[in-house]
Parts: sequence; structure tokens; C-alpha cells
Amino acid sequence: MSELRQNPITKDWVIIAPERSKRPDQFKHDKVQGKTTKQDMEERVTCPFCPGKEESCGEAVLTYYQEGSGKGGQPKWSLRVVPNKFPALVEGKETSRITEGAGNFFIRMNGVGYHEVVIEHPEHFQTIATMPLEAVEGIISSYIERYQVLIDRPSVELITIFRNNGPRAGTSLRHPHSQIIASPIIPIQIRHVIEEAVRYFDTTGKCIYCNMIEQEKSLGKRIISETEHFVALAPFFSRSPFETWILPNKHRASFAKISDMEKKDLAGVLTDIISRLYKGLGDPDYNYMIYSTPYQEDPADYYHWHLQILPKLYEVAGFELGSSIYLNTTSPEETARYLKEIKTDIS
Amino acid sequence: MSELRQNPITKDWVIIAPERSKRPDQFKHDKVQGKTTKQDMEERVTCPFCPGKEESCGEAVLTYYQEGSGKGGQPKWSLRVVPNKFPALVEGKETSRITEGAGNFFIRMNGVGYHEVVIEHPEHFQTIATMPLEAVEGIISSYIERYQVLIDRPSVELITIFRNNGPRAGTSLRHPHSQIIASPIIPIQIRHVIEEAVRYFDTTGKCIYCNMIEQEKSLGKRIISETEHFVALAPFFSRSPFETWILPNKHRASFAKISDMEKKDLAGVLTDIISRLYKGLGDPDYNYMIYSTPYQEDPADYYHWHLQILPKLYEVAGFELGSSIYLNTTSPEETARYLKEIKTDIS
Repeated sequence: MSELRQNPITKDWVIIAPERSKRPDQFKHDKVQGKTTKQDMEERVTCPFCPGKEESCGEAVLTYYQEGSGKGGQPKWSLRVVPNKFPALVEGKETSRITEGAGNFFIRMNGVGYHEVVIEHPEHFQTIATMPLEAVEGIISSYIERYQVLIDRPSVELITIFRNNGPRAGTSLRHPHSQIIASPIIPIQIRHVIEEAVRYFDTTGKCIYCNMIEQEKSLGKRIISETEHFVALAPFFSRSPFETWILPNKHRASFAKISDMEKKDLAGVLTDIISRLYKGLGDPDYNYMIYSTPYQEDPADYYHWHLQILPKLYEVAGFELGSSIYLNTTSPEETARYLKEIKTDIS
Repeated sequence: MSELRQNPITKDWVIIAPERSKRPDQFKHDKVQGKTTKQDMEERVTCPFCPGKEESCGEAVLTYYQEGSGKGGQPKWSLRVVPNKFPALVEGKETSRITEGAGNFFIRMNGVGYHEVVIEHPEHFQTIATMPLEAVEGIISSYIERYQVLIDRPSVELITIFRNNGPRAGTSLRHPHSQIIASPIIPIQIRHVIEEAVRYFDTTGKCIYCNMIEQEKSLGKRIISETEHFVALAPFFSRSPFETWILPNKHRASFAKISDMEKKDLAGVLTDIISRLYKGLGDPDYNYMIYSTPYQEDPADYYHWHLQILPKLYEVAGFELGSSIYLNTTSPEETARYLKEIKTDIS
């Protein structure tokens, strides 16, 4: 029989319906990547992120260089952050509200903000699962640097750092990249999560995420891997097969304030998890997102930054859209066990 | 420049970013359906919903027959509602909560409910855009009949009626069908929409949906079509290109209570809109969902049942998942104008 599970953080409900299920290994497919067929060559020629195409991207807001490069020649970049050519939001002084209809019924606001692309590596066919660890460390460093710069800009209220991997996850561009969007509003859903966390803190004096980590470690069955500073797990209330959360052991509300030790460790655990998905499922399409408090000045005893990875193995359909209940066909205990057993270079 | 728009009903925000946009006609693609190639023949042979396969579906909970059929022979069905073979929720007496972890941290509940499939037509390659109007009327009648039966069952709190059309919208089965799921909970997101509607009613003494209809009719620019009882429009705060809402002019909270005249008229407007999408975009994948109050006994002056159609023309990606802000690349004014100009058989 299926069961309903509640996310204690958001109070969302999920149906876990193993009757409709595939076994974890049935999600595996054979996607061959990195082969240099003619099509792949063409893809590289037109890619705007490959070396040699720097000018087409506009001026970089951040560049990292390869160690030892540039001696007697042009330095070679290892990572670049550039403005998005088709930005969702654009730089501007301040937001203003313009209404439409009687009684100001419809509210609109000019799209002020920032939309940047992190070009993660010079090589077109690299991906996090195949990159050297230092490259992944560089990606995380760039997230932190840009977060710190953007959060101080006027009109910026929320920073969303995310990576879309593959067409089903919303990107057709294979060159490894992430995106950063700084928006001038804190949506109600984000406020709702924080309100729930505050309510939990009021009752228990604890951070709900800290409590969740503690409980999951003691239960054990949904843990995929652990490092000194992080735990990776399939949440009890997983919305989709192989949903994975990476949470820091140390309570901290803002991602921008993590220590150098944690940064290094995060690169390791992120590479490890993405590599398990890559090996175990055949390089699945996925999205990952970093969740951090939008309230920078607050000590925020109640909120805990973390990273969520959602492999795109099924489509959100009419039931989810109509009821706001997710339908997951595979239990997180099963997917955690499957991913845990996969050996990666750094596990 | 892009702009942010707020949904006054949910307080959600959407970014309308025409800089990233395609023109409405660029969403059109050529999907050839209904041809009887060898592959299509095979599809029909294995289809569990085609006539002759009735027994494999389990006993129907509702059957409509073709007029005049059965004289001297087996009556022929025109529509059947059957239990889903792989149900998300299954019939059971009552729900109970079982907790996991210290302090009852994780809550689960047995998956009690109903999951039914409406087999909309005997012919495998029919779809709403190509069916005779009476067949669409039959579909709506079946929704109402099943809604009325299921809502009175113990443990049923919410009924979700939805249609997934095409693989990107979550179904690989082409035989025309909808689904009905009766679930034992009212999720927080549904309660939130109702709370916002109550708040609006408290302040203004009006139903927010009635007000929206009035405003859209007076503005005109997002209306796609109007009938005696319904209006079809692209909402101001459309989350995706070609999002369309069909709203009844008459205030009524529960879908189950619509009149026969409205039922007939709804079949017309639904066929009309789906036909416009079919012609204008080349039979796009889409989901539609019926939103109705979960509080049956309440007169509900504040809530207004309606139907939402979301064509699946792009993927929800990391930004939406991370920020809860939708990013729509085409303005609803433009898509409404495009759909409005398309001629259908019944427009």
C-alpha cells in the first residue's frame, strides 16, 4: 500500500507509491557523453562558452586562472562568471510597483536584478562527475564570491544559485555551467519555509534542520554518505526518485558564510554524490539548488543552508499541479541504499 | 526589460521576460497524430483502454453507452471510468498516522483514497480537439458524477480531476483519458489559496475570482474567448506560455454543483480552447486541472471553481525550484492575441 509522508519543514505532503514503482536500477539509462562525433564537434564550434568565444559573452564579472598559465603568454582561464545574455532580470536602480485594473488589482514591478552564468570549466564535455576536485572547489568559491557581492547590491533580496544539467532539467547547452539569479523579492513560499522553521524553534528551541540531521544519522537508513562537515541523504519526504540533500553538520543560516574547510569538503561531497548518480543512473538530467537564508543580518538560529539535488526522471503532471501533492514511485530508503553502494573515486 | 507580476490569488510572483522570448508561433511544432503506421497499429494492439480489453482494466465504476447501440447485440460503450491499475492511493477504511524518529519527528499516513481513470472515448487516436462535442460533454458528466460519489466517501478530503496529454505532460499512453484522485488530506498550498481568498473577501466583500473576471473583461487584452457561461483567458500572472484559465461567470465554489446548461457550455469552451492550442501549436503536450473548493458544506462566497490548462512547452528548472518564482518567456497578452485569432469549428 502506498503511504503519505509529510515534510516537517514545509508541511508539504508526498505520496510514496511503490506499487507504481520501478526498481532503482531501472532508472538507469545509457547516455554516452563526451564522444567526439561530428555532431559533438559542431556543438563545440557553436558553443558560446568555449575558449576563444570570450568576447561574445560580455565582460566577465569574475575570472579564475589556471595555475602556472600565462608565463610568457596569455593566461588561461579555469572558470568565468559572465552576465547572462538573455537575462531574466537586469541591473537597475530600484524597483517600483505599477498597477493595472480597478482598485490596483494587478501588481507588476520592473524586473530589477542580476542574472549571471558560471562557466565552470574551459572544456566543453566536462561535467561535475568527471572534473578534477579542484575545479569543483573553484565552482563553489565562485558561488560564494558572487553571493557576497550581489547580496550587498540595492534591491537584491534573494539569491538563487542553481545548476540545470541536461535538456529534461531545462538546459540544452552542454558546456558545464551554473546560474546565479539575484531577485528583488522574497517569495511567499520562501517566507513560509522560514515561518515554519521559526515556529519549530519557538516550540523546541532547536533548528528543525539540525534536528532532522540528528534523526537521520540515528536512523541511518536514508544516509548516502557522510564527511567531516556534511551529510548527504535521501529525505524522508523525497518528492522524486533519488532526491538528495547535502546538509552541513554545523548550523549556519547563510551559505555565504561557510568556512574554507567546509568549502573544500563540500566540493568533495558534491562530486561524490553527482558521481554516484552519474554511475548509478547513467548521467541523469538533474537540477541542484542552494537554499540560504534571505535575511543576512539575522543570526537565524532557526534556518540552515543546504543544497538539494533533484534528478529529472519523471514529469510533474496534472496531479501535482492540481493538488500540490507530489507522487513519488520509489521509496527514499531504497534509493539511498542503491546510491550508497556505488563506488566513486572519492568515496 | 523584464517585469515581475504578482498573482493576487496566491501572492506568487512570476517573471515575464520577453527578452528571452520566442514569438508565440515559434512554439508551434509539427506533431503528426492519428496516422495508422505500423507502430501506431502496434500501439493499439497493446493499449489497455481500447475496446476488447475491458477485462484487463477491472470492473468499471461508471459506463456510458453509445446511443442506439446494443440492439440485438452487446451495447457499445462510449466512456468508461475504471480503477487505476497502479493506484497512487487505494480504498481503505480510515487514515492513521504513524511516526518515525524521536519526538514523532517524521509523520506518515497510510495511502487511503481512490485513483480512477476516465477512458474518454473508445477510439485510440481521438483527443479532445478532434472528438465530437457530445463526447466532451460526456467526459464532463463523468467528472461530475464521480466527484459527487467520491466526495461522500469516508476519509476523502480533496478530489483532483486532471488530464495529462502527451509524454512531456506525464503520460505515454495516447488513448484519450483523464484521471481522478481522491486524497485524505487538504495540502497546505490549497489551504493557503483559500485563506488568501477569505482575506480578500473580508476586506472587499467580493470573491477575488469574480473580481478578476470582471477586471479582465473590462481590460479585454487577455481574453481568448467568451460564451454565455464562461470566459477563457490568459491570466495576468501566467506561469508559462499559453497558460489558459476557464472560469465560470456564475460564482460557485464547487465544480460538482454546476448546472446542466453550464456543463454543456463548458464542453464547448474546453473543446474550443484545446482546439486552438491543437491548431495553433501543433497538438502540444499539456496538463489541465479542475480546482474546486474542498469544503463542500461551506457556502464559500470567497472561492470560485475553475479549470487551468498548462501547455508543457518548457521545463521547470533550477530557478523555479530554488526561488519559487516562475520564469515565463512570453507575455500572456501576446499568447491571448495569438490564440484568439485561431478559428476553430465551434468558435
